[in-house]
Amino acid sequence: MIIQTAERLRKLGADIFAAQGVPREKAEFLSETLVEANITGHDSHGVSYFVTYSDRIKKGYIDVDAEPTVTRETDSTALVDGHDAPGQITARYVTELAIRKAKEQKVSAVGAFNCNHIGRVGYYTNLAAQKGVIAMMFVNVGHPSVSVYGGLGRVLGTNPFSAAVPTGKARPYLLDYATSVVAAGKLSIARSKKEKIPMHWTRDKDGNATDDPMAYKEGGWLLPFGEHKGYCLQLLMELLGAVLTGSRMGTDPEKEPPSPNGVLAVAIDPEAFIGLNPFMERADTLFSHMKKVRPEPGSRVLIPGEPEWETKENRLRDGIPIPEETWDNIIKLATELNINLKE
Amino acid sequence: MIIQTAERLRKLGADIFAAQGVPREKAEFLSETLVEANITGHDSHGVSYFVTYSDRIKKGYIDVDAEPTVTRETDSTALVDGHDAPGQITARYVTELAIRKAKEQKVSAVGAFNCNHIGRVGYYTNLAAQKGVIAMMFVNVGHPSVSVYGGLGRVLGTNPFSAAVPTGKARPYLLDYATSVVAAGKLSIARSKKEKIPMHWTRDKDGNATDDPMAYKEGGWLLPFGEHKGYCLQLLMELLGAVLTGSRMGTDPEKEPPSPNGVLAVAIDPEAFIGLNPFMERADTLFSHMKKVRPEPGSRVLIPGEPEWETKENRLRDGIPIPEETWDNIIKLATELNINLKE
Repeated sequence: MIIQTAERLRKLGADIFAAQGVPREKAEFLSETLVEANITGHDSHGVSYFVTYSDRIKKGYIDVDAEPTVTRETDSTALVDGHDAPGQITARYVTELAIRKAKEQKVSAVGAFNCNHIGRVGYYTNLAAQKGVIAMMFVNVGHPSVSVYGGLGRVLGTNPFSAAVPTGKARPYLLDYATSVVAAGKLSIARSKKEKIPMHWTRDKDGNATDDPMAYKEGGWLLPFGEHKGYCLQLLMELLGAVLTGSRMGTDPEKEPPSPNGVLAVAIDPEAFIGLNPFMERADTLFSHMKKVRPEPGSRVLIPGEPEWETKENRLRDGIPIPEETWDNIIKLATELNINLKE
Repeated sequence: MIIQTAERLRKLGADIFAAQGVPREKAEFLSETLVEANITGHDSHGVSYFVTYSDRIKKGYIDVDAEPTVTRETDSTALVDGHDAPGQITARYVTELAIRKAKEQKVSAVGAFNCNHIGRVGYYTNLAAQKGVIAMMFVNVGHPSVSVYGGLGRVLGTNPFSAAVPTGKARPYLLDYATSVVAAGKLSIARSKKEKIPMHWTRDKDGNATDDPMAYKEGGWLLPFGEHKGYCLQLLMELLGAVLTGSRMGTDPEKEPPSPNGVLAVAIDPEAFIGLNPFMERADTLFSHMKKVRPEPGSRVLIPGEPEWETKENRLRDGIPIPEETWDNIIKLATELNINLKE
């Protein structure tokens, strides 16, 4: 593992994207969201994307200059065309629009199509919670990698869901996960660390359970979490993220651009209900109760988002570990782009 | 098992509630929602509640005459005080308001407090989908019966979630489930049928896995589904159903009235996005793709809601099986209320 500071990684990522024509402020935001994924422990959505996105820019999937635009709008809703801009730029646009409309109208729903990969979804819902609104983001991935409950083969994407709510003294509640047992990136991590994986994460190409992280790459597939209940949620992401917004479905025959996201953000202003301050106080009470629950032997009760906060403290203090292969690829790319690595 | 027709059960339930002072139309609706639960196979939410609700009416928890009222409102949101009316009456009010506001404003959020038990949540989201809007209902149960991930003991309620979307030729997609592995009612069914239960449904009072459906009643607890991912969802129901609406939390010390629900309905009009007809066509395409997925040996791929439709066909044709003990209790109650059972 190579240890890097968040600051260095942010600068490096911004330089990499800016060198390929992404306007500086956007390049910085793009880099910030990816580094934040590493800081919070979601290495599968982190700086390895410096390389992946650069490859997609080269292939013309990501339009570095594009600006998202609203194609249909009411006071409380909007449908956004991402025009193949970097997914993070469109997702930020969607989130900010959803926050503004929720503040004005008390509830909002904003969707987007022609998004590229938007990265870690929790970044955006957390942004909204920090502004005092409850946010949910329903996302599909138009690239099949996950089976459906009772079926064989890759059918739908990892279809993540995220929800965040404002809190008072408690750390923000953040639900942020793939509706598969794990995200595909977790398998890359296991492969690069040469670790075995739990048997319920994937199937091999013949449908057998396996602990080999290679099996997925060799034609296997991920499984939805929580049996039929996770499958229902996986389909809900497809319906709200893709069917409603006109984004590519996991089941559509087109395979390019790779891994596009369809996005629906729903934001709710607590002021229309119990009020923001009472909401935050009650949320604090709920979470403090969770922390008093007697744990199972060898376990502990966590608030959703808490592992991320803990990792964040550690990594801001100790630095961010990056697998050597990932780091080598980033440095190779930066060198090709003539980025000054001495700074 | 006693076999009864839906028609007879609906009439009997309506008579039972009307005899206790519930206005006739409301008594019929209350009975209709409970019988519909049986028809669709959700016996845990069915006619056994004729007796449970009657008991709650006697004890003063359910106010037979109360009308829900709006306490706070915007064009797209409302907060409803159920005034301890039968939960179904408040949930119908919430749903109809959410549908109307979604049609007018394109997205809506309507919450409710002072609800009694609202029954099978999918009844309401399905109602909205039939009217052409996408609906989600986030519900908490202010009565702890489920542990939280990593913890021991009863902490939160079964906190159900439901979502439904309009479809064209395909049967409506309906997600409708407790965020526990199963609803508590499934254990009553197993107890009355004297069946063993799967080991991952409950823990006994000492935290041990068990296949004994009695263990729950003897101080055990249900488990959230899908490990930490289901737990995150369980908490989301608590946050949106209870914290936001001012309803009783599972962790609050008060224990009366029993099993109150806190409710938040979010409705979205597809017309603000891709449009209703394109949405339904795309949903049909998605679901027809699901039905073509190659099944795992001995399994099949179902659309959420499909098991309910299949059971509905069977039970409307063959009648509804009711455990003898449940039926005896209903007849005893009806006799006490001087209801003419010969009709």
